Amino acid sequence: MTAALAGLEPPKDMTPRQCTDELGALLAPYAREVEADLVLWMVEPDTPPELAEAMEYCVLGGGKRLRPALVLLSAEAVGTPAHDELTRRAAVAVELVHCYSLVHDDLPAMDNDTLRRGRPTAHVKFSEAMAILVGDALLSRAFGVLTECSDHKSNLLAAELARAAGPAGMIAGQAADMGLCRIPDGLEGLVFTNTRKTAALIRSAARMGAICAQANEPQLSAISEYAHSLGLAFQLADDLLDVVGSADKLGKTPGKDAQAGKRTYVEQVGLDQARCVAQELTDQAVEALQPFGPAGEKLTELAGLLTERNR
Amino acid sequence: MTAALAGLEPPKDMTPRQCTDELGALLAPYAREVEADLVLWMVEPDTPPELAEAMEYCVLGGGKRLRPALVLLSAEAVGTPAHDELTRRAAVAVELVHCYSLVHDDLPAMDNDTLRRGRPTAHVKFSEAMAILVGDALLSRAFGVLTECSDHKSNLLAAELARAAGPAGMIAGQAADMGLCRIPDGLEGLVFTNTRKTAALIRSAARMGAICAQANEPQLSAISEYAHSLGLAFQLADDLLDVVGSADKLGKTPGKDAQAGKRTYVEQVGLDQARCVAQELTDQAVEALQPFGPAGEKLTELAGLLTERNR
Repeated sequence: MTAALAGLEPPKDMTPRQCTDELGALLAPYAREVEADLVLWMVEPDTPPELAEAMEYCVLGGGKRLRPALVLLSAEAVGTPAHDELTRRAAVAVELVHCYSLVHDDLPAMDNDTLRRGRPTAHVKFSEAMAILVGDALLSRAFGVLTECSDHKSNLLAAELARAAGPAGMIAGQAADMGLCRIPDGLEGLVFTNTRKTAALIRSAARMGAICAQANEPQLSAISEYAHSLGLAFQLADDLLDVVGSADKLGKTPGKDAQAGKRTYVEQVGLDQARCVAQELTDQAVEALQPFGPAGEKLTELAGLLTERNR
Repeated sequence: MTAALAGLEPPKDMTPRQCTDELGALLAPYAREVEADLVLWMVEPDTPPELAEAMEYCVLGGGKRLRPALVLLSAEAVGTPAHDELTRRAAVAVELVHCYSLVHDDLPAMDNDTLRRGRPTAHVKFSEAMAILVGDALLSRAFGVLTECSDHKSNLLAAELARAAGPAGMIAGQAADMGLCRIPDGLEGLVFTNTRKTAALIRSAARMGAICAQANEPQLSAISEYAHSLGLAFQLADDLLDVVGSADKLGKTPGKDAQAGKRTYVEQVGLDQARCVAQELTDQAVEALQPFGPAGEKLTELAGLLTERNR
């Protein structure tokens, strides 16, 4: 890591709360932009109002908007500070895919979660049938939003998104997480799952932004490497939060991943080693950004804050 | 209807069995072609084998392949007898969307069907979680197959497919059918549902074929009108089959639509009137093909056979 880039990391004595605030401040303008575009594009004319309401409940209920921010930040890093229509559509599409995956993952037959961002999950609020249909609607609509744009690059982006979201990407990760497909033992299996379940869409988001900004091959591969490491670090940070978050509150049951018997980094290698790996992944992510020089500053800051928030 | 086109209709004294055989013979070469392409494109490299197996179970288990045949037949009617790669990809994509919709519609929270084409449905054969994921995988893959092609028209087709499959199309139809959104009373509501649940994807299939074949505006609108009427006639013919099929076998319970309390044409207007409407819709479909002259012969024949099979 260069000294200049290292200087952008948050100081190590920042509290998790301060990190979360900094992260929020970094993402906020991008979140505001994508939320306006979600309102603009998510619901097609002629969508039955009951379905539109359920879609809005599942998409407009908060969230960091990390993935769409990555689309926009990557386009900026490559050198396109203004967000053109295709870039904005890509940001919306990737968020719709993320939201669909949450709705379906929460279903009783899947992770059976009843709360999401402090509110009842879709199948609790509406019905299981509606939650299945809303997920399907958001996934279809993601590809609609992307390809309704006459920009000739929209099919490249749709292919990129389909690969990340599809059966060799996010769906493989969820199948592995649910024990529906065999994965290697131990850490290797965990990396298999996290690469697909979390990192694939994050990597795809960053690549879509770079493609929109006409990235050349070395830039695209640098962005891909960055976002792959970032995605793994992000999942690991979430695992840590699941453990540390509950350890902070004595008397409470441990995190739900442990409860569900899911394989996590912390359970595999212990808390300290998991923190080391998270830091290594963050360093790798930042390292990959070197070719961008100062244009990669915000992406560097993002990587630091995502890992630090769970210390 | 012109005399020449009318002559292509099956004779009225054909038995349903003969019609089904004729329909099978008409569709068979197209079904063979799309099945080979499904094997080629449906499963991406790096798909976990358990997921690939479940996808293949849901897609390669038979079916008339009406929708992909319509893609190919429409391209032929517009004047492209050879099926280029984009046309073949469109045929595969539309069948993947159809298959995904069947898998999700069969789920316990939806229509709760345990048999499909004489075999256990996906959630019975595998698990509910796997069935949800397989549906999601097929839907994602449909857009992947379509947009991996470098043809600049692929985004047009993806937008077309997303609209037909999405929350203002097929998903609205399924929501209406499940009583999850308000629809007008009586026949009007039934047409609302059938237009979205069945006709939207059929219309989109035909339009995709026409777009691949570089249809001009009048040709595209003729094909759209044909396929819209055909889609409604097809759904009506299915309603009739549901009633007539069970009436043939005394002592059996009535059809499952009636059991499920779903609104059907037959229940709304009676058997004879429903047959009249099916014939009218078929006539409208055939009428719309006039601009194509002899090039529309196979589409005409298809319309006749689809309605006749349920007399």
